Amino acid sequence: MTPGPSELYFTAEAHLKTAIRKKIGSISHRSSAFQDIYKHTSTQLRELLNLPDNYQLFFTSSATEVWERSLQNLVRYESFHLVNGAFSRRYRDISVELGKNALSAEVADGGVVDVDKLLIPETTEMICFTHNETSTGAMQPFEDIYRIREAFPDKLISVDVVSSAPDAELDFSKIDMAYFSVQKCFGLPAGLGVWMLNGKCIEKAATLEKDGISTGSYHSVSSYLKKATVFQTPETPNVLDIYLLGKVAEDMNTKGILQIRRETTYKSAVLYQALEASKTMTPFIKEPKHRSRTVIVGAMEEGTNEQVLSKLEKSGFVIGKGYGAHKQHHIRIANFPTHSKEQIELIADLIAENS
Amino acid sequence: MTPGPSELYFTAEAHLKTAIRKKIGSISHRSSAFQDIYKHTSTQLRELLNLPDNYQLFFTSSATEVWERSLQNLVRYESFHLVNGAFSRRYRDISVELGKNALSAEVADGGVVDVDKLLIPETTEMICFTHNETSTGAMQPFEDIYRIREAFPDKLISVDVVSSAPDAELDFSKIDMAYFSVQKCFGLPAGLGVWMLNGKCIEKAATLEKDGISTGSYHSVSSYLKKATVFQTPETPNVLDIYLLGKVAEDMNTKGILQIRRETTYKSAVLYQALEASKTMTPFIKEPKHRSRTVIVGAMEEGTNEQVLSKLEKSGFVIGKGYGAHKQHHIRIANFPTHSKEQIELIADLIAENS
Repeated sequence: MTPGPSELYFTAEAHLKTAIRKKIGSISHRSSAFQDIYKHTSTQLRELLNLPDNYQLFFTSSATEVWERSLQNLVRYESFHLVNGAFSRRYRDISVELGKNALSAEVADGGVVDVDKLLIPETTEMICFTHNETSTGAMQPFEDIYRIREAFPDKLISVDVVSSAPDAELDFSKIDMAYFSVQKCFGLPAGLGVWMLNGKCIEKAATLEKDGISTGSYHSVSSYLKKATVFQTPETPNVLDIYLLGKVAEDMNTKGILQIRRETTYKSAVLYQALEASKTMTPFIKEPKHRSRTVIVGAMEEGTNEQVLSKLEKSGFVIGKGYGAHKQHHIRIANFPTHSKEQIELIADLIAENS
Repeated sequence: MTPGPSELYFTAEAHLKTAIRKKIGSISHRSSAFQDIYKHTSTQLRELLNLPDNYQLFFTSSATEVWERSLQNLVRYESFHLVNGAFSRRYRDISVELGKNALSAEVADGGVVDVDKLLIPETTEMICFTHNETSTGAMQPFEDIYRIREAFPDKLISVDVVSSAPDAELDFSKIDMAYFSVQKCFGLPAGLGVWMLNGKCIEKAATLEKDGISTGSYHSVSSYLKKATVFQTPETPNVLDIYLLGKVAEDMNTKGILQIRRETTYKSAVLYQALEASKTMTPFIKEPKHRSRTVIVGAMEEGTNEQVLSKLEKSGFVIGKGYGAHKQHHIRIANFPTHSKEQIELIADLIAENS
């Protein structure tokens, strides 16, 4: 139950076994069998996430790759990043590495940037939000993002939903692109990311390309588009994971996204209550409306988290340490769709006992 | 037995099942369990390929990605490509897309560039060979590559061994980088490439970076290096495939690379003999020393390959059509380590019957 790669979705193992039986691992990415898999996965994800028709959906090898590709293809000169932890910071750093002018507003770990105080220059082309900062458990409310959209209707808005999709009820009509990777809430083996971007992004990429700016090669937007129209990818992709993602998304649609969200709400409430009741721990995110629903972080005295971790491990629960500088005074609990109410209640009990 | 993604290596399914049991699909890429997998895979590959100590070995998401990363990191201004088919051409095209000066010497499909006639300017920094052109079944002898090395000792030499490693007995001390993807001879699910590069490449990348040339971001050579020293990857990688690659490389080491090469020699001879004996087909590659050992291509009258393909399919063998413009008058047979002598002999018999 670490928020890095998490436990597989409870149906994933069965799908993996079916994939072995159906020889999905050796089908050609230029075959009609692959095109059917691509279509199925795309259709199921569009339904699950309520993705508008003007969005394209591309497969990358990771969310990290989306950072690079989105900046390469959608930013000529300047990006603006709301930084409140290791992952939002890395998106900005990649912009620097790619030679863009990367501006940022930064707050200390545990907070979210106050959008009312944001000064975004006219020259900024894309504003980059991290909905769910996996390193700290801080969540930037969608309302913040939508307000920035109203204030800057012409700029592109990129939203990292790496560890919050599909729980996150994102209104895609109020942003321009979003992305996630499959090893978080979708509970799949790592090695696949999903990049969703609207027509405004496609146009921007075309303009950059027309002007001779390098937008990469096989994973430039134009290269993706050419193949996406025939349900193919520019390179030989992770076919197995694309297949599994379609199957798990289908299972989630069958269960119903509303039910998944209701369960996430309940389970996160149980965990935050346990942390608030604890005498040795406290929710790291002070402000309730900034608390992540899917990555629950507890803070305690430096060096005391090992006891909590080993106690939980004795009961069969492997949860995460803190990230980076928080390694020894945080615990991070993944509250993903595969984690049952019963598991979460048991963890909450163990945390309460620790009080 | 198509030379695109091929049948899984005969031990791969069992390893995949073990991986499910050991929950490899959900371990963290920052855990010591992952570091052990990384070390094991790297060690087994180094042994199998006889990779010198001055080489680094990085994991990419595909061989296509290596095209992009190698040009980004190792070429400031100019690359030179020997083009004799779709894949060698794509490497050159990616150089163009990345804004480099991409020179090439090109021959018609079925041939290989005559290295004695090559005019490579002083300004060229990297010479790019495709050892085994998967689209046509043409093989550039390593001796050609070594002669170019002697003539141009200061330039970098890149060798595509996508569909020939580990059968290819490449002397890594006479080149500077090579790469392959796992869905060909290694018989694994697609979604992983391996990039091997020596100290001269590492230095070149550092020089480019020092001079402020964009070498990418998370998959720049320097970013790879930083993580490789602790047996990690910059991004969340395809952990499952890295695990499987280590296991299959270990199996190949146990069998012995010499035995694998002996079998490849025998099986390719059987197939070429059948094509030469056939009255309706002929080996597409006329010159015996340019014939691929792992991708055997037969040519016939336009539109007649469907009969051959369906006849073989009735006997349980799915082989490849021609690539691109050769779709309807070529057959392509993968002769990879997983394909048994018995399978190949049966195919040869069916081809002979067709005479």
